[in-house]
Amino acid sequence: MNTYLDCVPCFLRQALKAMRIARPDDEDLHRAVIYGCCDLIKEFDLSLPPPALGGKVYRYIKEVSGVDDPFKELKHKTNKKALSLLPDLRELIARSEDRLTTALHISIIGNYIDAGIDKDFDWENALFQERHNLLKNKYVELFKKKLKDARQVMILGDNAGEIALDVLLVEELTRINKNIIYVVRGEPVINDATIEDATYVGMHKLCEVISSGVRSPGTVLEECSVEFLEKLNRSDVILSKGQGNFEALEHR
Amino acid sequence: MNTYLDCVPCFLRQALKAMRIARPDDEDLHRAVIYGCCDLIKEFDLSLPPPALGGKVYRYIKEVSGVDDPFKELKHKTNKKALSLLPDLRELIARSEDRLTTALHISIIGNYIDAGIDKDFDWENALFQERHNLLKNKYVELFKKKLKDARQVMILGDNAGEIALDVLLVEELTRINKNIIYVVRGEPVINDATIEDATYVGMHKLCEVISSGVRSPGTVLEECSVEFLEKLNRSDVILSKGQGNFEALEHR
Repeated sequence: MNTYLDCVPCFLRQALKAMRIARPDDEDLHRAVIYGCCDLIKEFDLSLPPPALGGKVYRYIKEVSGVDDPFKELKHKTNKKALSLLPDLRELIARSEDRLTTALHISIIGNYIDAGIDKDFDWENALFQERHNLLKNKYVELFKKKLKDARQVMILGDNAGEIALDVLLVEELTRINKNIIYVVRGEPVINDATIEDATYVGMHKLCEVISSGVRSPGTVLEECSVEFLEKLNRSDVILSKGQGNFEALEHR
Repeated sequence: MNTYLDCVPCFLRQALKAMRIARPDDEDLHRAVIYGCCDLIKEFDLSLPPPALGGKVYRYIKEVSGVDDPFKELKHKTNKKALSLLPDLRELIARSEDRLTTALHISIIGNYIDAGIDKDFDWENALFQERHNLLKNKYVELFKKKLKDARQVMILGDNAGEIALDVLLVEELTRINKNIIYVVRGEPVINDATIEDATYVGMHKLCEVISSGVRSPGTVLEECSVEFLEKLNRSDVILSKGQGNFEALEHR
């Protein structure tokens, strides 16, 4: 999708949030960064998708704050928290009438772990809630149908924490003999999952893990590595997770 | 209160909303205004309260859009809607165990009619809902206590629509022999009530209606007329309504 003017206030809101995490006590620097973003935004090409421009904002913040990964601690915390839930969730899957759908439900709820948006959502609680409505969801049915004849499945990962819950989905897809490639960002941006997160949650022991090469909070195709794009094109089914990937790939 | 950096994204969000109402089809102009606001904001003195700076944003929008009162139609609609509810609400007051508290409840709910903030709130429904929790509210008790020895009561009005509901509060205060001055903004800004709205809802027939002289969405003291300030200082009780007045007057 293209970037809307509605995204502009949101870029500033995100910049302020990131600066307060990166350099909590330096209010003068927060102001300088917000004003700097005001200048940066005016140069933006709005025909690019929001994550491409958001990426510029976050790189500017890295540069000015001198903090390479403001969300490092938050990412570690959510990975750890999500990992601690896996034993109970594995049991939930084992007891469910449709293992794959339950694993999909958990993977979808994982998407709510998002430091870029402002809503608080009780994702831990939602994991164990009602999930039968997914059983007859037409998109889930379509996904399963496409999966039937697929060998190579690519998952475009999204956030830290979420990636730990995706472990269960990869386990289920492996059970039904799918070959999985799990894709992460090329460098830290917001709380998006990188190779480091994939390794921490043990994803690399279950399937091939690669970086898309992007430095933005979404799989912006113009930023992707050739290696990634080749694997993307060779995949039979691509499961794209999260708002950033959606914004980057819609109409592309 | 001073203006926080959190207000900056909100100024842009409001500017976009106002521009879309003022000039719905001119997206190039929307972009120019958002970028223009980015420049404007960098010149802001953040020691001023948010409405003082919001006022600058809205005046800039008036100037660039050529539309003096983008919210004119919306204001008329909410005034009309609120007026249509008065007969039922008058009955509610007549049947209530504490007329003044019920009128206060209605006046408070009226404050939710706000075009500047983004939340949708079902104010019509809330008017007729539970209001007994106000009966023992310590601020309501304090207000009534202060009212006891007061002769001159000033109400700093807030929005259109809300001002129609305030008619009921003024009626109740008049019943207990208070002398009321109802204050509106000096010119249209967002959906804030002006002399025109006060006349439309018939407030001028119940009490003295004056303008504070401000052009901002809150009673920013530096912008007020001498006439208003004299009357403010002579009032025994001042009832300040709405976020804009709060932001303008806190710590002042």
